[in-house]
Amino acid sequence: MTTAVVPGSFDPPTLGHLDVIQRAAGIFESVVVAVLVNPSKTPMFTVEERMSMLTEISGEYPNVSVDSFEGLMVEFAKARAPSVIVKGLRVVSDFEYELQMAQMNRHLESVETIFVPTSATHGYLSSSLVKDVARFGGKLAGLVPPTVEVALRRAVNPDAD
Amino acid sequence: MTTAVVPGSFDPPTLGHLDVIQRAAGIFESVVVAVLVNPSKTPMFTVEERMSMLTEISGEYPNVSVDSFEGLMVEFAKARAPSVIVKGLRVVSDFEYELQMAQMNRHLESVETIFVPTSATHGYLSSSLVKDVARFGGKLAGLVPPTVEVALRRAVNPDAD
Amino acid sequence: MTTAVVPGSFDPPTLGHLDVIQRAAGIFESVVVAVLVNPSKTPMFTVEERMSMLTEISGEYPNVSVDSFEGLMVEFAKARAPSVIVKGLRVVSDFEYELQMAQMNRHLESVETIFVPTSATHGYLSSSLVKDVARFGGKLAGLVPPTVEVALRRAVNPDAD
Amino acid sequence: MTTAVVPGSFDPPTLGHLDVIQRAAGIFESVVVAVLVNPSKTPMFTVEERMSMLTEISGEYPNVSVDSFEGLMVEFAKARAPSVIVKGLRVVSDFEYELQMAQMNRHLESVETIFVPTSATHGYLSSSLVKDVARFGGKLAGLVPPTVEVALRRAVNPDAD
Amino acid sequence: MTTAVVPGSFDPPTLGHLDVIQRAAGIFESVVVAVLVNPSKTPMFTVEERMSMLTEISGEYPNVSVDSFEGLMVEFAKARAPSVIVKGLRVVSDFEYELQMAQMNRHLESVETIFVPTSATHGYLSSSLVKDVARFGGKLAGLVPPTVEVALRRAVNPDAD
Amino acid sequence: MTTAVVPGSFDPPTLGHLDVIQRAAGIFESVVVAVLVNPSKTPMFTVEERMSMLTEISGEYPNVSVDSFEGLMVEFAKARAPSVIVKGLRVVSDFEYELQMAQMNRHLESVETIFVPTSATHGYLSSSLVKDVARFGGKLAGLVPPTVEVALRRAVNPDAD
Repeated sequence: MTTAVVPGSFDPPTLGHLDVIQRAAGIFESVVVAVLVNPSKTPMFTVEERMSMLTEISGEYPNVSVDSFEGLMVEFAKARAPSVIVKGLRVVSDFEYELQMAQMNRHLESVETIFVPTSATHGYLSSSLVKDVARFGGKLAGLVPPTVEVALRRAVNPDAD
Repeated sequence: MTTAVVPGSFDPPTLGHLDVIQRAAGIFESVVVAVLVNPSKTPMFTVEERMSMLTEISGEYPNVSVDSFEGLMVEFAKARAPSVIVKGLRVVSDFEYELQMAQMNRHLESVETIFVPTSATHGYLSSSLVKDVARFGGKLAGLVPPTVEVALRRAVNPDAD
Repeated sequence: MTTAVVPGSFDPPTLGHLDVIQRAAGIFESVVVAVLVNPSKTPMFTVEERMSMLTEISGEYPNVSVDSFEGLMVEFAKARAPSVIVKGLRVVSDFEYELQMAQMNRHLESVETIFVPTSATHGYLSSSLVKDVARFGGKLAGLVPPTVEVALRRAVNPDAD
Repeated sequence: MTTAVVPGSFDPPTLGHLDVIQRAAGIFESVVVAVLVNPSKTPMFTVEERMSMLTEISGEYPNVSVDSFEGLMVEFAKARAPSVIVKGLRVVSDFEYELQMAQMNRHLESVETIFVPTSATHGYLSSSLVKDVARFGGKLAGLVPPTVEVALRRAVNPDAD
Repeated sequence: MTTAVVPGSFDPPTLGHLDVIQRAAGIFESVVVAVLVNPSKTPMFTVEERMSMLTEISGEYPNVSVDSFEGLMVEFAKARAPSVIVKGLRVVSDFEYELQMAQMNRHLESVETIFVPTSATHGYLSSSLVKDVARFGGKLAGLVPPTVEVALRRAVNPDAD
Repeated sequence: MTTAVVPGSFDPPTLGHLDVIQRAAGIFESVVVAVLVNPSKTPMFTVEERMSMLTEISGEYPNVSVDSFEGLMVEFAKARAPSVIVKGLRVVSDFEYELQMAQMNRHLESVETIFVPTSATHGYLSSSLVKDVARFGGKLAGLVPPTVEVALRRAVNPDAD
């Protein structure tokens, strides 16, 4: 039984991420969403906050669990073998970068990567664009799940409550 | 248990096609290679010849079977639900066309498509390029499986034997 | 007052085409939809049928008219100067072809071309894909306007009535 | 009467930017060039300097004015409704990024974006490349308007006069 | 001394082709322009006419000669070893196709391919676009050399003289 | 006799870089590998270390020498005229950036750039990806030459010896 690993920064998770998780959950019997711990970057949300949001928004899929990893993602996947890495593809520039990563991961640990095209209506979503929208007080509905919207509003305006 | 459907013209199957079939066989418990019957095109090999070659070259994978379809491929896949369509991706222009097809298939029958990056060493392979090489007597080893090489040589030079 | 010329084969018009016409009608005071007469191709619908369908589906936009042209489209646009050519962009491969055509049109007659991104939900639509779906009896709702759906069903199955 | 908004950093304006402004001025009756104020970046020129250079180089177009904005550009455009955002397109990677932004802007405020292909001879121009050329004393003629060339030379060599 | 082979259909040669030939002539000591003989296509000009036009337009480069080939181009190049295949690159879609051909040629005969970016001002040129312009009586100056312009006008209007 | 200049950061050199150097050495009589000195970046290896590694891994090609440059690379190439800049191309996004640089270099100093497609098996290699693999202790064989592997291991784990 192949385990699908869905890696990412998820800072924060968007409806595009949720779309990929849902598709993986429909295809594979077991899905692990894996949050990258990157000490050299300053995220908006801690790893714990991101894991908590992911757990909440994927709660209706009993075959999805949430974890985190540091270092080479391919080794996280390898430790769950037989496993496959699942990445969402939105645009051509995603594709080229992800193709390089997939070939590197195959070289390093013989773990396969598959690509899932995201829904056309989520093609323009990215975590960094969503954070910009939040910072300038733009409309977040339709971009992130409601629970993430609340967290985003609080993160950009901590004194609001 | 999700069935993976690997559709194509396979006129003839190349080592790039075999690469995709192998990866699908490693990820999914059941794989159906589906040969497109296209009455408006004149193939080099009949559907039966192509199915026979595919059966032979995928013989070592007990979870792979070979079939054919006419009309909308998504309906072939739908009839084997739960199923997922598996396409190999070599280059950016593949990606855009396949992304459109995947979105159309999702619209028509809610069948998902996943993409498998082909091995870097097979990125330059296509059935039509391989047929050109055969017609002009070029080196086929490394492009197609041995059984296909024999069939190709005979097809372009029917009086040779 | 700049006239926007929206050229195409429209064989048949899709919801993607209607999307571009709507946007042009919202930006420019006068829009001409221009159907290409191409004697070297065998279309599914005559030029008159295509013009009639376009007139019907763009009926709610009083600033849109429908016409046809043969030969170089840039000369059709030039005759309506000041004018601008409006093309929908769905994918990267569209972009490269259209960029070449835009530069050629600028070279030939100094007519500008502008690009309008189509709605994400119509990114996978093309007239040829829609004709394939019709031929195999697939679901047309959501791909073409109702009036075009009726015409398509009749065109692929002329004895049905 | 639709107002065309041409947004950018313009640090500094290049002949490629001027090319887009000229085309917009030829198509639309009113054009606003909008300089982005981005407090998180350290530009080579202040917003005032960039506005002043833009005002000078677009002086021959009476329907062009220059303004600045901070925050979400789509709200600047919305406040000038009916309006359309005009972006120059040089290369495929521009296209993908701009397509995402256009879809986001449509989502946020229903403002349309149109793309204008830049002149082929300016395809290789970008503000950052131009700054590199200036820093190393390379030839600036043919890359930026004369008034920008003078400002660039002074900016990279403040003690020259 | 490496021989540069510049292959193509050249039906007819454009200023874009001449641009590539000129660059190759500036880099390599010996350049062979190689016209593809393709019996399965109906060209506008015979191989002899195309060779004659190429000889005339490259007359000022003493290190350029013109030849023709049928079959696999890589074998034509191999026969002139040490040799390198030179292709002009205009757009991304050229690049992907040419990359596949280059990898195939390396596989077949270990002949290298190098790419020369065409001048930005010729990026929109292709032989088929030029033939369309000629058929509809559009402006050919700036697209093809004068000698090709005369031949094109005669080819599309044989009774004119 | 044209000198081929192969510029880069080479921090560190990979098997992909070596692949480009080898091809250039097979096509041109004289090749200069040129290491960019970029004071605004903090490299993993000093310019001297990178030059030393490049000298060692290209030792078997007597027509290859190693040098360094600061500022505009096109002036380094110009000083070695007649010369040509040689860049490896792996993916489409490389192509677009390099095409812009090639056009800029032609504008600045009339130096030509040619592109060499890298081997399909090295398509996924980049210096930054290789450094990440080294930092996390991943497999470096097949990514960099043995001498670079030793240097990389020492650089990420200075206390190991």
